Amino acid sequence: MLGRNIREKRREKGYSQDAFALAAGIDRSYIGRVERGEVNITVEKLYEIAAVLQCEPASLLPT
Amino acid sequence: MLGRNIREKRREKGYSQDAFALAAGIDRSYIGRVERGEVNITVEKLYEIAAVLQCEPASLLPT
Repeated sequence: MLGRNIREKRREKGYSQDAFALAAGIDRSYIGRVERGEVNITVEKLYEIAAVLQCEPASLLPT
Repeated sequence: MLGRNIREKRREKGYSQDAFALAAGIDRSYIGRVERGEVNITVEKLYEIAAVLQCEPASLLPT
């Protein structure tokens, strides 16, 4: 699931939700909802998140 | 660009915009806007489009 992949990559990169929200310029509670799969993010937002996590957007997509 | 990749894959698979809109249960004018990059689709919509085009969602993402 996309949210779980984002959470795993965030933790892998050593970000807390707060630190990641700050780095991505995204609201912390929104990050929580994304990671719990409660929000259907846009492809553009996927690219923004991947840029901060320094990974390929495709690598976050569930296979 | 994502829209161009979707258009190329659609044509590769032999779909007109009308036929693809019908198959995907999506409005034809919306498909046109997606392909022209005028709409920021959700990751969920990317999966729906990829399913109809029988390709991996990641394969449509611009690299």
